[in-house]
Order: sequence, then C-alpha cells, then structure tokens
Amino acid sequence: MKNLLIAASAVKRLATQLANFTDKVNLFEMQADGSVTHGGEPVSLADIDIHCGWLSSDIMAAKLTRDYAISLLKSSTLEWVQSLSAGLDDPFFTKLAEKGIRLSNSDAQAPAIAEYVVASVLQRYQGFDIRKQFQNDAKWQANDFKEIYNSNWLIIGLGNIGQLVADRVTAFGGNVTGVKRDPNRANDYPLIGFDNINANLAQQDVVVLACALTADTRDLVDQAFLAQMKPDAIIVNIGRGDLVKEDELLIALDKDAIDFAVLDVFRTEPLPEKSRFWNHPKVLVTPHSSNRGLGTDSRGDSLFLANLDAYINNKVLKNEVNTTELRPAV
Amino acid sequence: MKNLLIAASAVKRLATQLANFTDKVNLFEMQADGSVTHGGEPVSLADIDIHCGWLSSDIMAAKLTRDYAISLLKSSTLEWVQSLSAGLDDPFFTKLAEKGIRLSNSDAQAPAIAEYVVASVLQRYQGFDIRKQFQNDAKWQANDFKEIYNSNWLIIGLGNIGQLVADRVTAFGGNVTGVKRDPNRANDYPLIGFDNINANLAQQDVVVLACALTADTRDLVDQAFLAQMKPDAIIVNIGRGDLVKEDELLIALDKDAIDFAVLDVFRTEPLPEKSRFWNHPKVLVTPHSSNRGLGTDSRGDSLFLANLDAYINNKVLKNEVNTTELRPAV
Repeated sequence: MKNLLIAASAVKRLATQLANFTDKVNLFEMQADGSVTHGGEPVSLADIDIHCGWLSSDIMAAKLTRDYAISLLKSSTLEWVQSLSAGLDDPFFTKLAEKGIRLSNSDAQAPAIAEYVVASVLQRYQGFDIRKQFQNDAKWQANDFKEIYNSNWLIIGLGNIGQLVADRVTAFGGNVTGVKRDPNRANDYPLIGFDNINANLAQQDVVVLACALTADTRDLVDQAFLAQMKPDAIIVNIGRGDLVKEDELLIALDKDAIDFAVLDVFRTEPLPEKSRFWNHPKVLVTPHSSNRGLGTDSRGDSLFLANLDAYINNKVLKNEVNTTELRPAV
Repeated sequence: MKNLLIAASAVKRLATQLANFTDKVNLFEMQADGSVTHGGEPVSLADIDIHCGWLSSDIMAAKLTRDYAISLLKSSTLEWVQSLSAGLDDPFFTKLAEKGIRLSNSDAQAPAIAEYVVASVLQRYQGFDIRKQFQNDAKWQANDFKEIYNSNWLIIGLGNIGQLVADRVTAFGGNVTGVKRDPNRANDYPLIGFDNINANLAQQDVVVLACALTADTRDLVDQAFLAQMKPDAIIVNIGRGDLVKEDELLIALDKDAIDFAVLDVFRTEPLPEKSRFWNHPKVLVTPHSSNRGLGTDSRGDSLFLANLDAYINNKVLKNEVNTTELRPAV
C-alpha cells in the first residue's frame, strides 16, 4: 500500500476514479484549513509515512501550497510527486531532486497557454479595437491586418508548451525556429542554441519566452537582446518574469524599439500596483493566468490518474523529469 | 500573341515579372478612369480582340469592376479570366461559363480569411475585453477562458478557405466536421452532406459558413437551423450574406438561442446604417474584409503570374473552375 497526500476537494471530484485504487493507495486528505484526515478521521502527518503527492490546482487555489510542500518534504518515505505546472524553478523541486524523489511535471496547461499565445498575437495583428470602433460608429470601413501566415517566430524553449505553440503557428503558415539548450538533437523544427539567439532576432516577428528559468536564462531579455529585435516585433512571456529585465523592456517599448509585449508573468507577482506595465499602451498584462483554459483542470486530473497508475505498477511516468538535469534558478 | 486586359496599376507593380511575357502577351491597360491604353497610347476596345483578363484587386479598388466585366464580355475572342475571389455567384461568372470561357478563381485570400475566422472565435473565447478592464484597473485578477482544444467545428463548405480553417482548428486540437455537396469523396476530415446539417448542429461549438452561394444554399441558416444550435455556440459567416436569413438570426441572438455571430458578409452591402447588427452586443460586424490580410495581394499577384504562364503554355491552371458545375445563385 502507498500513502497519498491529496487535496480533499480532489478526492471528492475524483471519487469514482480513485475507487479503482482502493486496495493499493491510502488517501490522506488535506482539508481547506490545512488539517489532514484519513477515512474521515483527523490524523497527524507526523505519524504517517507519505509515499506520494499531487500538487494539484486545488492545493494552489486553497493557498495550501506551502503547507503541502512542507508536509511532503518532512516525509522520509516520499517517492514520487506530481506537479501541476511545467516550471520547476521553485526551490521545492530542487529539494525533491536533491533527495532523489521522482518528479513528474504537467503538460495539462500547455494547450491553454498555446492558445493564449497565438490569440494574443492575433489580437494585436487583427485590429479588433479598430473594428469595434468602426462597428460602434456604423462605419463600413475595412482594416488591413497583419498575418501569422509567413511570419517568423522564435520560440525560446521547445518543451511541452513551446512545441504546441510551434504546431499552431506552423498550421497558420508561420515559420518557426526553436531555441533549445542542445540544438543538435533531432526536432520537427530548425533549432538554434541560446548563444545564437541575439544573432537571429532581426528576422523575427514574434519572440516567445517558453523556457525554464535557470541561472543561465535569468535576465535573458535585456537591452542587448531587445536592440536586435525589429521595431514591429512582438515579445510574449509565458515563462517566468525573471527571464526579462523589466526596466530595459519598458525602455524599449517607450522608444518604439519593439511593437508590443504580451506579459503573463512578472518578476514580482502579483504585479505591484505602481508598475508601469499596467497602463502602458503597448503591453497586455495578464495575471499569470495563461494556463486558465477551461480544459486545464480535467487534463490535469487525467494526467495524475494515469501517472498514479504508472507509479503503482512501476511503469514509466508521463512527463517524468530527469532531476539530475534540474538546474537551479539562482 | 495573346491580348490581356489588365489594370494599369497592376502593370506598374509587376513590370519586372510581366517583362518575361513580352513576346507572348500584349498588355491593354485599363486606367483609373476606365479608359484603355496600349504602349502608352489610347485605344478603343471595340477594335481589339481581348483573349484574357485578370479581375484584380486594383480593378475592385478603382471601382472599375463593372466597366471591366462589360469589356471582357464584349470580346468574342475571350478565352480565360482570372478572378480575385473564391465566390462565383456573381452573374458575370455565369455568363463566362455559358460562353465556355475558362475561369480560375483565387485562393490568395484564403490564409487571411482563415486567420480572421480563428482569431474572431479566440477573441470571443479568450475574454480580451475583461482582461483589458482588469488591466486598466491594475487588478491582478484572472479570467478563465474557453478553449478551441477539444471544441467541435462544423465547416460548411470545405473549399480553399474552409480547408485552411479546418487545418488551423485541428492544430489547436479542435474537432472538425466538413459539409460538402458530395460527402462521399475522400477527404482529410469526416464529411456530411447538406441534408444532414441540422441533425449535426447540436454537437457544434462553432459553425462556419464557407460555402458557395447557390440556389440550394441561399437562406441555409434559418429559424430551423438556428434552433438546433447550442446556446453557447458561435456562428461565423465569411461566405455570402444570402446564406443567412438575417431577421431570424437576430431573433436567435436576442433570445440567447446562440452565443455570438461573427459576420463579414451581409445580404445588403454596405450594411445599411439602420441595421440592428451594428450595435448588437452579440455580433462582430466587419465590412466584407476578412480577406484583407497584408499578404493577400502579393499571393494574388503570384497566382495570376503562374496562371498566365500556364495559360500561354496550355498547361493546367491552378484553381480552374469546372464551369459546367457552376450553379446559379438564384
């Protein structure tokens, strides 16, 4: 038997599916107040050997992430954790890696984030604001619009998310170049390494930051980077705020060195009220919510259940992270 | 030698490319005022045998379409016409067909229209208006959004345009069913016939009208059609206004029988100022301009030049219309 620490609300939602694991998994349910129950009775985690965990959206939504992470890290028997996110720059994951605990990240949010990225660029290209104005004025006037067709995209980081962005852009007839740490591995798309980014920026209409935050990628987008971009280029950050030197991005936007920034992540989150990004006419701000597609949670549930089954049966986990390659973000 | 009637502005733009045809094609240039010149000298079309024509965007933009069409139809030697549009419901084309004149339509606008369709649905799904409001208020608040991923699309008419819409939707993980006159021909997508549309509407999240206007498709979208649609479904019309009974669409929108209508074409164009579509909160109106992507004209130029070469050399024309199948729209 394996002991699973799981959000009580997730147990309620997935009661039918979890019933299949009754003789293999004991459920320890974290309630909304952070307390833990087993079979309806309160228990103390100090008395329990936890073997596996699922950092689900329930835990995040209930603001239990810290309690939950601490509980898992305290258990000397921990073997596997399923994360709800793609990024692994949180120190929690580094600690798991140090302890040799298996870790699988999530691609459940990838389709949602890919839609957000393409939609945000189309939003800028199509001119819906102008259209709305003409419509309000009952004015039969056309607007010419930029096309993704034949545009050039540099997708920095071709993981689960970057790959889906690339597939969608390609279907529109756009041209994709990917950036990966090892650009020599086989891929569907032409690849360059991180050291060749700046030399390739002058051709790019859209630059998407979809890479992990590591000591190497921190501050990747700085004055030198932005200076290579085209004045009509768009930058999209759905990775991490620390990938971008925000002051230098603001300067580039102010002097029209680039056309637009789509920013879902920031160095400080929530974005401080005094940030100039909020009311900058060339910036779309969203609150780290590009993952909030209505299908993300059910895809996350399916991934967890499939991986729970794989874990129990000693099979390969989907999205298992090679934790020996996990690189610190600082 | 073949005599080509062509817009003077097109000759100017494509001077280099047309130079390759000097010993095979005589250029008769229609000026902005409708007069025609040859080698810089005014000529009367009554004295000239015209063999081929190109109804280009230049002709449209200069509002010379009627003059141009009449000039072509008067010529007893006419052999081939290249159109700039996909639709062939204008009586001009029926007349050409009756005379047995070769006709090629255009797919140059298809990538632009496909982007417009997907962008308009994403515009509705993503909630950019709410995002903008939150941003204006410096409010760190997420919005959940609908996804194309796993949504169901019925694409009525899988010609050049419908096909490109289908490819893009599929790349997003959406499910496409196509409607064709002959649903038994092989296709990349599952097909149904026009007589099965209503029975399939209840499953559809998005319905796209991308079919030709014929006597059979006129008034296709009526009360019975709309009554089968889901209350959260979107209808997109980039075909022809006469495909839709507009009064019945307005009633369906008013009583929330469907969620939204994206309308680029109307029964009367320009859309009359008094039309309720202009200020309906559940309608996006654009002025027959979904083709106005910035790449459309150069794709149209390339298509014309390739087909001029094919015509001169008795080769197969790209997008040649089987005019024996051309069905009247009335």
